Amino acid sequence: MADIRETGLMLDPKYDSNGLITAVVTDATSGEVLMLAHMNAEALKLTVETGYATFWSRSRQSLWKKGETSGHMLAVEDIRIDCDQDAVWIIARAAGPACHTNARSCFYRRVRPDGLERLDA
Amino acid sequence: MADIRETGLMLDPKYDSNGLITAVVTDATSGEVLMLAHMNAEALKLTVETGYATFWSRSRQSLWKKGETSGHMLAVEDIRIDCDQDAVWIIARAAGPACHTNARSCFYRRVRPDGLERLDA
Repeated sequence: MADIRETGLMLDPKYDSNGLITAVVTDATSGEVLMLAHMNAEALKLTVETGYATFWSRSRQSLWKKGETSGHMLAVEDIRIDCDQDAVWIIARAAGPACHTNARSCFYRRVRPDGLERLDA
Repeated sequence: MADIRETGLMLDPKYDSNGLITAVVTDATSGEVLMLAHMNAEALKLTVETGYATFWSRSRQSLWKKGETSGHMLAVEDIRIDCDQDAVWIIARAAGPACHTNARSCFYRRVRPDGLERLDA
C-alpha cells in the first residue's frame, strides 16, 4: 500500500520520541560525509529558511547553529529527505573543519578488523 | 581533556539506550548518500567480517542483511567511524536500488521552502 509520507510531496518529518530526526551532512565539493547530528522541527525550519545548517544539541538541549562560535558554518546547497522522512541529507559548503576535534570530517578513522586507523595521521 | 574514544585506535562504539549506532551508506562510485539505518554490535561485527552491510531492523527487531531478499546487497569498500563513535559511514558498491521503494537512494526528494520535490520524476 502506498504510504503518502513516502510518495507525497508534503514535508512531514517522522520525529522520534525526543522530537528529532537524523541529519547527515556531506561536503558539496568532495562528497565526503562531514558529520552526523540531529534536528528538531525548529532546527529544520531554520536550516531551510536561513541556508545555514542548524541542529539540536542533545547534550546541551538547545538549538545549535553549526559554527556559531567557531565560525565553521555549513552553507546549505541542497537538502534531501529520505523515504520515511526520519532523516535528512544536507549538502553543504563548509567554512572550516566540521568536527569539534578540528578534523575536516568527524569520520577521520577507518574501522578495520583489528581496530581503528587514523586517516589524517 | 583528550577523550580516548575520540583520539584512540580502539573500536569502542557508543551504543544508545537501545544498543544501536547510526549507519550512513554512500555509493562508492557516485558518492551519493544511499540510505541511513542502524546497527547493533552484532550487525557491525557481521558488516566488518563479511564485507556486506548488515543492520538491525528496529521495526522487525532482528538482524537484517541488506539485500538478503531483494538481492540488492551492499558490498563494503570502506568503513569509517565518527569522533564520538556513535555513527559509522559505510562506503559501498550497491547491487541494486538501496531503497525499499526501488529508488536508487532513499533520499529521492528535495526539501524546498514550499514542500518536497521529486528528483527522479
